[in-house]
Amino acid sequence: MLKANVTVTLKKSILDPQGSAVEKSLRSMGYPVEEVRIGKFMEVRLAEESRENAKEIISEICHKLLANPVIETYGFTIEE
Amino acid sequence: MLKANVTVTLKKSILDPQGSAVEKSLRSMGYPVEEVRIGKFMEVRLAEESRENAKEIISEICHKLLANPVIETYGFTIEE
Repeated sequence: MLKANVTVTLKKSILDPQGSAVEKSLRSMGYPVEEVRIGKFMEVRLAEESRENAKEIISEICHKLLANPVIETYGFTIEE
Repeated sequence: MLKANVTVTLKKSILDPQGSAVEKSLRSMGYPVEEVRIGKFMEVRLAEESRENAKEIISEICHKLLANPVIETYGFTIEE
């Protein structure tokens, strides 16, 4: 069984009001924060032993379901 | 300037209905998925040069604002 750690973030050109709100809060609390961007994190456990297959499956899943390729980008790592 | 990649996930004992919904969708689409858990991912840029200070600041921020320690756990990595 393999585990994929997937991160989905808004593209740089897309406004992130949630991130801006957190950024402002942190700054008003006195933290030296320059920018905050918020995305999603997903742990996906696969019934699959081959890393190669796992990579293909996760790419397909990200593209089809977990991320919206119009406004988001994704990245993932595979671990045991 | 340093960047922290923060992940916030629900504790194992806390139900994750959003993850379960995605898990069921993926399984019904024929993917060999065993479990999906969904959390948050945050990129925080700090106006700070020292890794040690950055670690302290991010721990504090996570504990105070980004995660709810009652139901969530957090992890982070610091990069340039």
